[in-house]
Amino acid sequence: MSSVTLHKGENCAFLTNTRITEKVPKKGKQTVTFKNPPHIQGRMSVVGAKEGKGPLGKYFHKVLDDDKMGEKTFENAEIKMLTTAIDGAVKDSGLKTKDIDLIISGDLLNQVTTSNYVAREYHVPYLGIYSACSTMTEALNLASTFISAGHFENVLCSTASHFATAERTYRYPLEYGCQRPPYAQWTVTGAGCTVLSASGNGPKITMGTVGRVIDFGTTDLNNMGAAMAPAAMDTMVALFRETGTKPSDFDLIITGDLGKLGSDILRDLMMEQGYNLGQRYIDCGNMIFDVTQKCYQGGSGAACSATVFNSFVLDKILDGTYGTVAYFATGALMNTQSCYQGETIPCISHAVVIER
Amino acid sequence: MSSVTLHKGENCAFLTNTRITEKVPKKGKQTVTFKNPPHIQGRMSVVGAKEGKGPLGKYFHKVLDDDKMGEKTFENAEIKMLTTAIDGAVKDSGLKTKDIDLIISGDLLNQVTTSNYVAREYHVPYLGIYSACSTMTEALNLASTFISAGHFENVLCSTASHFATAERTYRYPLEYGCQRPPYAQWTVTGAGCTVLSASGNGPKITMGTVGRVIDFGTTDLNNMGAAMAPAAMDTMVALFRETGTKPSDFDLIITGDLGKLGSDILRDLMMEQGYNLGQRYIDCGNMIFDVTQKCYQGGSGAACSATVFNSFVLDKILDGTYGTVAYFATGALMNTQSCYQGETIPCISHAVVIER
Repeated sequence: MSSVTLHKGENCAFLTNTRITEKVPKKGKQTVTFKNPPHIQGRMSVVGAKEGKGPLGKYFHKVLDDDKMGEKTFENAEIKMLTTAIDGAVKDSGLKTKDIDLIISGDLLNQVTTSNYVAREYHVPYLGIYSACSTMTEALNLASTFISAGHFENVLCSTASHFATAERTYRYPLEYGCQRPPYAQWTVTGAGCTVLSASGNGPKITMGTVGRVIDFGTTDLNNMGAAMAPAAMDTMVALFRETGTKPSDFDLIITGDLGKLGSDILRDLMMEQGYNLGQRYIDCGNMIFDVTQKCYQGGSGAACSATVFNSFVLDKILDGTYGTVAYFATGALMNTQSCYQGETIPCISHAVVIER
Repeated sequence: MSSVTLHKGENCAFLTNTRITEKVPKKGKQTVTFKNPPHIQGRMSVVGAKEGKGPLGKYFHKVLDDDKMGEKTFENAEIKMLTTAIDGAVKDSGLKTKDIDLIISGDLLNQVTTSNYVAREYHVPYLGIYSACSTMTEALNLASTFISAGHFENVLCSTASHFATAERTYRYPLEYGCQRPPYAQWTVTGAGCTVLSASGNGPKITMGTVGRVIDFGTTDLNNMGAAMAPAAMDTMVALFRETGTKPSDFDLIITGDLGKLGSDILRDLMMEQGYNLGQRYIDCGNMIFDVTQKCYQGGSGAACSATVFNSFVLDKILDGTYGTVAYFATGALMNTQSCYQGETIPCISHAVVIER
């Protein structure tokens, strides 16, 4: 998909001015094994028309023909999209909205307003989170903790992103018609929701790894893959080391939205750490669009991995293709102002392990 | 402190066009009693010069003489302030940074960048949250859950706000010299941090209540107290009903930053629900500035209750003045764009109960 050609050993050259070098934690673990692992009992993915035409189109539960969903603003469309995903996931779980004990949600907009306005309609306890495109795995980690601790029975995790609202928030107004560099990615228009329950027979979330903020000094707001790959590496290494596992112990290893360039960088970084990810590694951003769709390095956005996980990945777990899956969503934690003020891009990746 | 005179029964008149009426949850509880309640082992409050001159000045651990802390930007000052609070709280707990298992933090800036950039420096697992000025109690709720479940031992909760960065984010550039209406509040410049541990002899967090998003139809970005009071009521009623308690079971009931007007509204709303809050109720926003400081209804911002809780309130718990305290931080969940697009202001309040 990439129009940037990478030669072996070359793609990490820009990382030499590392602001913060990788350190292992002094004490304590990032990974928790859940005593009472929750079950994935319901899910739903909603995507825009462009995503529906991509290679994973047939897996998504709902493909919109109008990215504005008949609303006046793109922000309202994003709210409607997330509501559709939540309602669908609750229905899929066989529960009613009144059975949901807690909503954990976040998104990319300033003050996570999509999630806030959606939560307003449900009269259910709500925790807003911010972890950029790593929102889905932060939510799954928190929900699994609440359920494993016996605090709540049914917890809903959700996130959304929209190409038009993300461009307005992070880059330029669409009307400006800004040119995109070849290493750019395309924010996925979509929403994903997963319902976790204390009981049931769905796939279980058995482990969770809370990420650390990693910053290798990338400053280009268009080059998210390069910025986020070191964070994915950091969390991946933590999970493998702390649980005594290696890539071949998993049937599938997924990252969120590194895209083609970012996932190539991750492969190299992991190789430097002594792990060969091989054929079992996929990146949702690298899969969601094909080369004809002019998205350069692929998809990005909180909905990228949230929609792929809740459709294709869970389908393949449920049909027996994959037994044990490690899911590392990846997020870039800057805002436009911090970058204008000369800051580099700090990133994070939270992970969960799903077992059939 | 108020220059708006309120007559009995008059202050809720603007709430008659209620967008969403108060509903009790159909099923499930919002309140959790922690099986292994965590101990508050360390804390620190840092405030700006203006806050230092207010009635609580002598309680704060550090009062800045320069709100920019020698930094080039107010955003960097906010980062430095939060770092100071975290370092101080860790020192106060007798731990080292390497003993901290998890940082939970959020703030008011777009994409919670203050917390993200601070977390970058600590190489510790990090969960970013967004709950506006209710951040401190969302963080304390999550940290208590993690510790009670046995997942982590020492968890750090923190938040910050800065008058200058908040005005830029939510209202107008300072240079514009915008007039403030008499029902406005003043964003507190400060940072607060609490270190919770599985063991120790500090005050315990015994219960937590996760709030719901409540929207009574307020649209004025300057009138945060009126917008947030119904959310405080909703969570307060949930805590009292679910635990079979009443206001007189607590030595102190604190809200975050309703200010004078908002806390008067809350008293009335609670009276309508059959609860007389009486003299044991205080609002941090109502206490932090005095009438000579021209802050109209008082303080607001995520740091408002975070600094007052970590100084005055914990001092009074530790010296034996108060035995059981209920702390309801309150947050408004809009952003500027949602208000420009005609949306009302959804609000939330999360609570924790602290016992000596």
